[in-house]
Amino acid sequence: MNTFGRIFRVSMLGESHGECVGVLIDGVPAGIPLSPADFDGDLERRRSGARGTTPRKESDVPQIRSGVFEGKATGAPVLIVFANTDTDSAAYERLRTTPRPGHADFVALKKFGGFSDYRGGGHFSGRLTAGIVAAGVVAKKVIAPAVADAKLVEAGGSGDVAAAVEMAMNEGDSVGGVVECRVNGLPAGLGEPFFDSAESLLAHAIFAIPAIKGIEFGAGFAGSRMRGSELSDDIIDVDGRTRTNHEGGINAGITNGNEVLLKVAVKPTSSIKKGRQTVDMATGQHAEIRVEGRHDACIALRVPVVVEAVAAIVFADLLLLEQKVPRVARRG
Amino acid sequence: MNTFGRIFRVSMLGESHGECVGVLIDGVPAGIPLSPADFDGDLERRRSGARGTTPRKESDVPQIRSGVFEGKATGAPVLIVFANTDTDSAAYERLRTTPRPGHADFVALKKFGGFSDYRGGGHFSGRLTAGIVAAGVVAKKVIAPAVADAKLVEAGGSGDVAAAVEMAMNEGDSVGGVVECRVNGLPAGLGEPFFDSAESLLAHAIFAIPAIKGIEFGAGFAGSRMRGSELSDDIIDVDGRTRTNHEGGINAGITNGNEVLLKVAVKPTSSIKKGRQTVDMATGQHAEIRVEGRHDACIALRVPVVVEAVAAIVFADLLLLEQKVPRVARRG
Amino acid sequence: MNTFGRIFRVSMLGESHGECVGVLIDGVPAGIPLSPADFDGDLERRRSGARGTTPRKESDVPQIRSGVFEGKATGAPVLIVFANTDTDSAAYERLRTTPRPGHADFVALKKFGGFSDYRGGGHFSGRLTAGIVAAGVVAKKVIAPAVADAKLVEAGGSGDVAAAVEMAMNEGDSVGGVVECRVNGLPAGLGEPFFDSAESLLAHAIFAIPAIKGIEFGAGFAGSRMRGSELSDDIIDVDGRTRTNHEGGINAGITNGNEVLLKVAVKPTSSIKKGRQTVDMATGQHAEIRVEGRHDACIALRVPVVVEAVAAIVFADLLLLEQKVPRVARRG
Amino acid sequence: MNTFGRIFRVSMLGESHGECVGVLIDGVPAGIPLSPADFDGDLERRRSGARGTTPRKESDVPQIRSGVFEGKATGAPVLIVFANTDTDSAAYERLRTTPRPGHADFVALKKFGGFSDYRGGGHFSGRLTAGIVAAGVVAKKVIAPAVADAKLVEAGGSGDVAAAVEMAMNEGDSVGGVVECRVNGLPAGLGEPFFDSAESLLAHAIFAIPAIKGIEFGAGFAGSRMRGSELSDDIIDVDGRTRTNHEGGINAGITNGNEVLLKVAVKPTSSIKKGRQTVDMATGQHAEIRVEGRHDACIALRVPVVVEAVAAIVFADLLLLEQKVPRVARRG
Repeated sequence: MNTFGRIFRVSMLGESHGECVGVLIDGVPAGIPLSPADFDGDLERRRSGARGTTPRKESDVPQIRSGVFEGKATGAPVLIVFANTDTDSAAYERLRTTPRPGHADFVALKKFGGFSDYRGGGHFSGRLTAGIVAAGVVAKKVIAPAVADAKLVEAGGSGDVAAAVEMAMNEGDSVGGVVECRVNGLPAGLGEPFFDSAESLLAHAIFAIPAIKGIEFGAGFAGSRMRGSELSDDIIDVDGRTRTNHEGGINAGITNGNEVLLKVAVKPTSSIKKGRQTVDMATGQHAEIRVEGRHDACIALRVPVVVEAVAAIVFADLLLLEQKVPRVARRG
Repeated sequence: MNTFGRIFRVSMLGESHGECVGVLIDGVPAGIPLSPADFDGDLERRRSGARGTTPRKESDVPQIRSGVFEGKATGAPVLIVFANTDTDSAAYERLRTTPRPGHADFVALKKFGGFSDYRGGGHFSGRLTAGIVAAGVVAKKVIAPAVADAKLVEAGGSGDVAAAVEMAMNEGDSVGGVVECRVNGLPAGLGEPFFDSAESLLAHAIFAIPAIKGIEFGAGFAGSRMRGSELSDDIIDVDGRTRTNHEGGINAGITNGNEVLLKVAVKPTSSIKKGRQTVDMATGQHAEIRVEGRHDACIALRVPVVVEAVAAIVFADLLLLEQKVPRVARRG
Repeated sequence: MNTFGRIFRVSMLGESHGECVGVLIDGVPAGIPLSPADFDGDLERRRSGARGTTPRKESDVPQIRSGVFEGKATGAPVLIVFANTDTDSAAYERLRTTPRPGHADFVALKKFGGFSDYRGGGHFSGRLTAGIVAAGVVAKKVIAPAVADAKLVEAGGSGDVAAAVEMAMNEGDSVGGVVECRVNGLPAGLGEPFFDSAESLLAHAIFAIPAIKGIEFGAGFAGSRMRGSELSDDIIDVDGRTRTNHEGGINAGITNGNEVLLKVAVKPTSSIKKGRQTVDMATGQHAEIRVEGRHDACIALRVPVVVEAVAAIVFADLLLLEQKVPRVARRG
Repeated sequence: MNTFGRIFRVSMLGESHGECVGVLIDGVPAGIPLSPADFDGDLERRRSGARGTTPRKESDVPQIRSGVFEGKATGAPVLIVFANTDTDSAAYERLRTTPRPGHADFVALKKFGGFSDYRGGGHFSGRLTAGIVAAGVVAKKVIAPAVADAKLVEAGGSGDVAAAVEMAMNEGDSVGGVVECRVNGLPAGLGEPFFDSAESLLAHAIFAIPAIKGIEFGAGFAGSRMRGSELSDDIIDVDGRTRTNHEGGINAGITNGNEVLLKVAVKPTSSIKKGRQTVDMATGQHAEIRVEGRHDACIALRVPVVVEAVAAIVFADLLLLEQKVPRVARRG
């Protein structure tokens, strides 16, 4: 249930205020070079600290615990963990019986019968995306020379991301955003006609990212308002290149060799200083909740690198499945 | 690759102009009553014939070939097939080398090396949704008393669906639409924190439906433009009921007991009479293509029942997994 | 639950006295030639009629209902069904409440709450192996030029199969046997170190065959009585060829390029004319049972072709997974 | 590929001479008490040190890194690792190009292109069974009050295990053995008719244990030499109790409520002091190999607890699947 993929398989683990978070990756092609430094760039992009993100200083130092030998993947499962060091659980004690609106608190209580680690969101924490990003770094090596590239194109409904974030911070509130991801360099033929369509797999993995509430491919919802004659992407050469790309590089569930284009909607975090209403589960009494802990005014700022990671994971798996990438890297 | 689900497992099969289309369903709880008449209502909703849909008269008579005995599911796999009778393949001959923009033709060629059954879309045909709808009928019995209810709320960008369809027909063009689906009566606790979040599974299955290019839960993309204080659904009782439902009944990937609400974007079909540009794969020459066969001016008209089916399939699986529904129905 | 395989995926369906039995095969490489005649040889080997097998005349005519076009696999799921025609259910009526020792009757009652199709064993019938054999025919084409070859090497404990069968028939009793299977022509490197070892996958699939109660690879149980110095297969060249083959062509769960050798133990059928004791589930009274229907004195006679099929299915999947066989056949 | 199970899912990881070995367990019911001390008994049974086992002093201290909070499983994935401390890799350097007969060396080279961690067997090492045993400890809590109990009933072909081991040690040789496992307290109805028969799943998991070359259920191979009238287990009450248990508690792939009985053949380890022949892969020259490192004269001595673990893992998964065990433990 915490695993995704058929050949390149990613399993998530850990808790925000437990010992560690991490990821187990099976099916990594033997021979791919992997060193801790490879992860720096993407982890830095995910890390908090920028204006609008939580000041928690996370020790995002990836520890490669298995599956790598002499700097290269061995073909055995790769375990990467991040130790938790800067945890401050005191602020969460009260949340044990008073679920925060828009958070996992209530559903965790219902699903796991109160046995969850409630501190800092526990296993539900956004901190687990460090593991996704790490798996994405590996996946990006698998899909190369194809490249996934995501960015935040809108925050709080505006293209002026910085201004929107600033305003939310000043008000003790939060804003969401829209992340756009483009994947270039993929061959045609990835994905299946129905249940494992490229869109199915991408959406499946994207909705594993906390705070995502929507996804669209190509023209997406706007496309549903076009005419067929307008939406239709004329084919202009025998490689299937199209004049426009309203379909987002995927026809009938299968990549067509054009740029894969998707957008995701990121909700504003519900961890805000403004008061909201909830109920004390022990007493049934109404309660007001204000989150004073360290949180993000615009969690969407940290999402692009996670979306890239997930897109790379999906295509790594599909490329291996379609034998477009070998199971063992060439020596050299 | 053509299978979805962990316990309640659905596999699709068949071709538009082959012998049949159908579905194999594993994990159906033993004892559930099943007769061909149970399928009439939903199949009728999917069937063509309404204004704006193809005049092809499909013989959507479900044949239950296995897994049912004395009117009840036995617990063994249920095979349901629909024979193809009203097929007219002549119109497709030319498409063999001239891929229609926006269709599976090009990607099928690339993926399956030209061995696909190209007639009427073959295995990629929307006709395979008859199998999904049939599986949905079974799934709806599993999830009862929970109910999935979907409808077309917009076509061609307008709430006046009939007018939009009429206009498209007059112009030899097509329109898309937006389908809204609500599922009521589900318990809290369905779905997993990350890769098998309820949103992941729903989106995965929804994108198996042809022509879907977007999905959003609750406030979705509009929610990404709200403030956190505005989006946040206040909790008003110990059952987790919320004042608003901007999250669409799902927090942190897990149902919270409120109505599950999702919307999907359906693109306008690219099978239109208006000319579009493509390339003859054999010669590399540009070509114009006009589809003269029987097609839908607004395929979205037929999508709601398929979305309902898919939602029911997802929740049937999750309810079985969470032991909220027994593997064997009670006698009596 | 009724599905096996990761890429080449086989799902079983049907009932002995229902409409049909069959198999759905996903992941068949596009372009593989497939015609009904291809199945004749193996189905004939499985078919009853030989001395010692049931006189039921089964209409083992495979109907390819999907996934094949112009004589070749399209890459879409292949559905093959066998209609049931020569069914005589009267003899089974009494078994509804009086489970036969050694049969599925009791466990089916417990597992499926009495909703099973009890006629002729229903979904548990050995007749479903027709579907396995059909899938095996397809798989054999995938693994070629590698070849799986199985034969009955022992019946009733004796190498004189014919004599053992004759004796059992004369006594209204039954005998089991040992089937040996050899697979030649496989590359080294198939299988995984632990849970998906080649032995794990072969054993998994072999124990899907009714009446199998044991499996061993290479020297097997006899090997457990050897010394290490005796069992150890000396390596004699850089291709890994070994002087002996006590390991059965598999080291550490992975094929080593030598012949894969396995043996399976087939129990004697418990459908015999001799009286056995059971209990009437309705009354709790002891009852004697003698099976008068049409049955096999030595079901093991029909097992070799099923073992071959299963071995081919496993290796088809592993060869696809390891990219030793392409997903699309070459044209020509 | 390194994962087993449908709900209770076990993934293995690590290398013998890397940083650690371990296991990731998904689907552990929330609320099950888990502390490091729970693992002591079974890990002690697996540990080396007894006469006939390697003198390597492994630090089998399980570190529970995730999924447990306040002494109980949270429902999130449980990561358990064992740090490697007493590693001595010098002896393995030569093996890099000279594969040991009967070991993973040659197949690892072929499968992973020479990128494997060759030290101490790397990911193929029997040391990884520490992780299986740890998962088994958790699984045993899930299946309780059912109990799995395994023991070595034969070594070197003799019931006098101690004498056989002593002889092998004196000769610088090794012996194999037969392990018998009994599982009591299971309900009827576990397992599926074909591909996921109880025997299929047990065999699949058992063959993940290094050095296993055979498995049989109930009378097994001996049963294949009985008559049907002799093998058949008479049913003596409405609970399905049988007079004999030649079927090993499984009919038609499904548990019948009687004791599940299986035996496995363990080969003698090929790591022996006696000289064996192999080939230097770099030069193609024949070479003699004598293993001087620390090894087991009778690896079978350490197998029973691993077999128990694997049986418990299989039945934990089946009990959850059949809803005989809740997903969340009762508080109390």
